[in-house]
Formats: sequence, structure tokens, C-alpha cells
Amino acid sequence: MGIKINTHYQEVKESYLFAEIAKRIRIWQESHPEKADKLIRMGIGDVTRPLPKEVVKALKEASDEMGVAESFHGYGPEQGYDFLREKIQEYYKSFPVDLAKEEIFISDGAKSDLGNILDLFDRGITALVTDPVYPVYVDTNIMQGNKLLYARAGEENGFLPMPDPSVKADLIYLCSPNNPTGAVYDRTGLTAWVNYAKEKNAVILFDAAYECFVEGDLPHSIYEIPGAKNCAIEFCSFSKKAGFTGTRCGYTVVPDSLVFGGQSLRKMWLRRQTTKFNGVSYIVQKAAAAVFTEHGAKEIEENINYYKENAKMIMKTLDELGIYYTGGKNSPYVWMKCPNGLRSWDFFDKLLEEIYVVGTPGAGFGEAGEGYFRLTAFSTQEKTKEAMERLKILLAK
Amino acid sequence: MGIKINTHYQEVKESYLFAEIAKRIRIWQESHPEKADKLIRMGIGDVTRPLPKEVVKALKEASDEMGVAESFHGYGPEQGYDFLREKIQEYYKSFPVDLAKEEIFISDGAKSDLGNILDLFDRGITALVTDPVYPVYVDTNIMQGNKLLYARAGEENGFLPMPDPSVKADLIYLCSPNNPTGAVYDRTGLTAWVNYAKEKNAVILFDAAYECFVEGDLPHSIYEIPGAKNCAIEFCSFSKKAGFTGTRCGYTVVPDSLVFGGQSLRKMWLRRQTTKFNGVSYIVQKAAAAVFTEHGAKEIEENINYYKENAKMIMKTLDELGIYYTGGKNSPYVWMKCPNGLRSWDFFDKLLEEIYVVGTPGAGFGEAGEGYFRLTAFSTQEKTKEAMERLKILLAK
Repeated sequence: MGIKINTHYQEVKESYLFAEIAKRIRIWQESHPEKADKLIRMGIGDVTRPLPKEVVKALKEASDEMGVAESFHGYGPEQGYDFLREKIQEYYKSFPVDLAKEEIFISDGAKSDLGNILDLFDRGITALVTDPVYPVYVDTNIMQGNKLLYARAGEENGFLPMPDPSVKADLIYLCSPNNPTGAVYDRTGLTAWVNYAKEKNAVILFDAAYECFVEGDLPHSIYEIPGAKNCAIEFCSFSKKAGFTGTRCGYTVVPDSLVFGGQSLRKMWLRRQTTKFNGVSYIVQKAAAAVFTEHGAKEIEENINYYKENAKMIMKTLDELGIYYTGGKNSPYVWMKCPNGLRSWDFFDKLLEEIYVVGTPGAGFGEAGEGYFRLTAFSTQEKTKEAMERLKILLAK
Repeated sequence: MGIKINTHYQEVKESYLFAEIAKRIRIWQESHPEKADKLIRMGIGDVTRPLPKEVVKALKEASDEMGVAESFHGYGPEQGYDFLREKIQEYYKSFPVDLAKEEIFISDGAKSDLGNILDLFDRGITALVTDPVYPVYVDTNIMQGNKLLYARAGEENGFLPMPDPSVKADLIYLCSPNNPTGAVYDRTGLTAWVNYAKEKNAVILFDAAYECFVEGDLPHSIYEIPGAKNCAIEFCSFSKKAGFTGTRCGYTVVPDSLVFGGQSLRKMWLRRQTTKFNGVSYIVQKAAAAVFTEHGAKEIEENINYYKENAKMIMKTLDELGIYYTGGKNSPYVWMKCPNGLRSWDFFDKLLEEIYVVGTPGAGFGEAGEGYFRLTAFSTQEKTKEAMERLKILLAK
């Protein structure tokens, strides 16, 4: 008797990945206090470069505005201020993708929206994710009582699984450039997924959080693919693009042409956001808009290039050692094969014990991640260089 | 065939309240362009005082920190920084209420958490709300496919309905000081609700967004009532307290002793937040912490007193006119009876047409609001004074 809780929460597995990493580091530090300052962390998915000067300037100007009655801003539009939506609309034109301002929703980050979007769908539907996978896609679906299917990624498909027409899914999660593998779909790959989704009357949830690392002709947005506006919602963020992991701003694109069960998903999302959200801080939206100014864009490019240099150092080292990897190009992540057939956690221990370098065991991202290891380009150049020198000496033995 | 949407969204009624108000104002302005600058808005639930100087200072200092690698903050804890949780923990001690830091979750506002909390419960449960009611409680439950029951508020109970033991509910929404009626439960009233909830094994969702207006011995927090920690979740916000409606910060208290279906709701909420949220902007959390400094607290008190003076002006006018109302004391809202038996919208039109004052028709908050009208204390003192002078002349006729 009494209130019934959502029992699906009990089906979510506790993720011990980062807790286990922290524990092993702590044990190592305690037994090697003299080496503690030699530790280099290459496992983090968080940025290290500070906010661009232009962004800090915008934050401070907006803070001053808020301190004066005449320029104070109270409740803003739940879906974001036009000044920011218009900047994003303009940014998409460079891909080139045409969006209506009303199709762009400002949020406090891709993670919130990726979770909350499930509100629009029935419970018990089937979600297709890749393996290895960003754990948030899995956990949010389990919490809803949804079913999960896995598309296996591996060396045979360059960690870019393609749709299997015999599999029926309602939701399809694609992350490109991928976390954790750094692999990037080209137009042909994404076109296959768009066609598959349309055939199954499924919705693609496209996570474009790392699009700012994409170079050349590879797609930044799924809407570069014909037909995607009829089947895909896109999530993006200022986190990696502009160092907003602690500042919190992102955006979600829900095209007007997404109509399922006779209902516009854009209108449903608008309803969801106006009912359960009160918009992103005015100050933070002003900061995000500064990312698109001439100075802001230049500073951001410099930061991204800084991380790309780190990625190049990692790739060069692995190339010299003859180790298989994906990513690094068009991505801040390098997904390497553990040498000598080592399992992910054994390689983790080896790196920690012998060269004091921390990465992320691939097995933590799913079964198909076993035997692989993720290194990130988000550390400093000095530390990345030092870590790669140590790795070269260790593995060239 | 294909993905199934959440059809409950179609059951949510479009709220035409604020759209209808905006439309009537627009029509009036177009037909009376010469009077347009005489319009006084007393319907808004948004604040008008700027952010305190101490808060602006904290925002700017934190922005500078974010611009330097050594003091940059990336991803923070999803449940909020300890420096802010500890301030809130200390604030609760003044009620006096003892909370563990882990029971306090920082959010981007009460509205988000009031919506998202339903994630923890089964769909199809029964929610009891008061009538009149803040529409978010109703709409979020309809979206989940929950059933709704209404506890009727009126002059017979001072707009403070008490529990009916024959009614079975799973969730109970209480807002005190109330939006829209400004009525405040005393200890006896809240104790009755706590006892009712415990008897039914129900959960109280207590919206304390206006607690900063409470004076004297009335409860600020439901946890001042014995037993509440076994049945209540409390939502609060810096919006009204410190003018954060556009800055976005709030907090939710989920006591450790809330155990339903064998599960800790605190642990479930932690799981929800770590999976579907990435924390509030570091800068905004620093600003919220400044609210609790000596200077910050003084400035906030001044702002609240400013609004309280407005409320007093409104109450004095209604007292002189012999009009029934609730609120005004311990609340920024004054809920007045429309004079001469007028219906809410007719009184709205009368005020707009004859004295160019805009309020909110009570009927917009539910059936029991018909014949009532909400005025808010959030305008400037000059405008509030002018509006009350006009109202006195109009109704003293």
C-alpha cells in the first residue's frame, strides 16, 4: 500500500568505472608516495584550457547588467534567448544546414536533454545503442523501462557499426565523433542510418558533442544528410567546443518535420521545456553567444588546436609503436588496442604501475570495449608529451 | 508501426492564461495608444530588483577564475558544490532544521526539480493538488499519465485546505506561502498534512519557493514538523529570495529517511541527477553562496523588505475598501475577492479599461479561483503606490 516507486531504477547497474579508477589510483599513491607527483591523467573527458577571454568578458558584462534595475533580466524564454538561437542558426548555415530559430532549444547541457528527451516517448520502447557506448544512453533507457539492443563496434567495422535491416529499433543513438572510440561516420555511413531509421519509423538521437573536432568533408551535423530532418534529433554542447563543462550550456535541435503518431516532436519538446524547465542563466547564454564573435571564435579555434596537437602526439606515438587505434583525427579521444593481447584493466594497471599514466579501460564502456583503452587529448601539452615518451619507452622494450 | 510517443502530452490543456492576458493588453494598447505609458503591471510573478552587489561581485570573481587555467573549474559534482550545500545546511539550522549535506541537491531551479522528481515514481499514481493551483503541478502529472485529485481552497478554509482522510493520494503538493493565494500554513495545518501523508504512505512535495517572505513563528520548512523527514521532499529556490529568476539556482532536499518500496528516495534522486544532469554552473553556485555572506544577506533583506512594503500598500488599500483577501503577509502575493461579485476576467477587463492596471484572473489557476484576482508585490514601489491610488478611487465610487 502507498505510493509506488519507479522500480526500473533498481535495474540500473552501479557504474564502478570511474570509482574503480579512483580507487586504484589511491592505492597506488599510498604505496608510492614518492612518485605521486609523477602521475599523468589521460583518462579525463573534461577540458583543462580556461574559458576564452572573450567569454569571460561577456560573463562579467552580463553580471554587471544584472546588477542594475534598468538592464536586469528576470525569467527568460524557456527555449533560450533569440540572440543565442540566432548565432547557432548562423553556425549551422556553415555546414550548410538551414534551421528555423524555433527548431533550436538552448539547454544547460547535452546530458540533461539526452535524458529528458525520453519523456516524449512511450515507456517500454526499444533503444539501439552501439557497444562500446557512453553509459548515459543505456542508464536513461533502463530507468524508463525501455529495452536495449546493441550494435557491436570493432576493428572489423572500424568501430563504426552499420544498421542491420533485420533489427527493429524505435530509438537509435549515434555519437559521432564517438565517445569513447573517436571514430567518425562519413556521409555514406550516416546516410545508411538515416535510411534505416526512416524505414523503421524510428527516431535517431544524434549526439554531436564533439563536432567541433571534425575536419574536412566529414559531417558535423546529421542534418547534412538528406532526410535526417524527418527522423533525427541532434544534441550539442559548448562543453568541449568552448570549455563550458563547468559553465553549462548546450542546445538541442528538434526539426519541425519530425512528426510521429500525428504529433510534432518539436511542439512536444517545447511543451516539455516550458513545463519542466525555466531556461538557462542569462549570463551563461551571453557567454555562449560570445563564442561566435570574431575574437571568441579565434580563441576557441586556438584551444581546439591545442587539444588537436595533443591528439597528434598520441597518434604519432601509437603509429611508431605499430599499435591499432581509432580516433585522434577529428576527435579528442584516441581508442587504442591494448598491446600483447592485454585486457583493459591489466593494461590500466601496467600503465599506472610502470609509467604512472592513467587512462580509461575500454571494458568500462561495454563488452566490445574489452582489450581496448581510451586516452584523451584534454591534458596539457607538457604532460601529454611526457606521457607519450614514457609510453614509447615502456612498449618499445 | 514505429516509435510510440507519450500520448499523455495530448491530454495537457494549453494554458491560455498569460497568452490571453497579453492579447487583451495588446488590444487595449492598440485602441488606447495615448494611454499606453500609464499601464501598470501587477500580474507578474517575476522580480524587478536587480541582483545584490555582493552577488554580482561573486559572479565576476568566479568568471575571472574560469579564465585562468590554475583556477578553472570543469565538470563539478552533479549534486552541487559543498561550499553551497554547506551554506544551505547552515541556513536550515536557523529554522531550526538539521540536514545532512548529502540530503541537499543544488539545481537550476525549483521548476526543473518539481518536474523531474516524478521520474522516481511509477506512472499512473494519484497526485493531490489544491485548487487554485500553480499549473506546473497539474501539467507535469498529466504528462506522466498520473491521476489528479483536487483539494478545494476557499474562504471557508482561508484558502488553506486540510486533508480529507477518506481521500487516497500517493503524492501531495503543498505550496506555502502559496502561489497564487499567498496563504500560509501554520504548524497545526502542516502537522495534519504530515500525519495524513504518513497514514496513506504518501509523499509530500513541499514547494517552499516563497519561504523567505515568512515572518514570526510560521514554518519556513516542512521539516520543522515532526515526522516530515519520513514523508516529504522540499523544493526551494533563490529566484524570489535573491532575484535569481534569470540567473537560475535552486535546491531540493531529499531526506535519507525517505524510504518507499524498500528504496531510498535520496539515493534514487542522486542516481537520477548523476545520470540526467551535469550540475549548475560553477559561477552561478558561487553567486548563490554570496547570498549567505553578511553583506549579501543584508542586501537580500533590503530587497525582500522592498517587496513587503509593496504588499503592505496593497493590503492597506484593500482593508480600506473592505475587500476580502489572503496573502500579503508572509507572501509577495495578494489574493483578493473581486468586488461586487464580478467574475475574474470581468474584473481584469474593468481594471485594464478603467485604471490601466493589469493583474492575474484567479480563474486561470483553477475552478476555485473564479471570482478572485491575484496582485503581486514585485513591481516598483512607485508603480504599486500609483496603482493602489487608482484602485481606491475606482472602487470607492
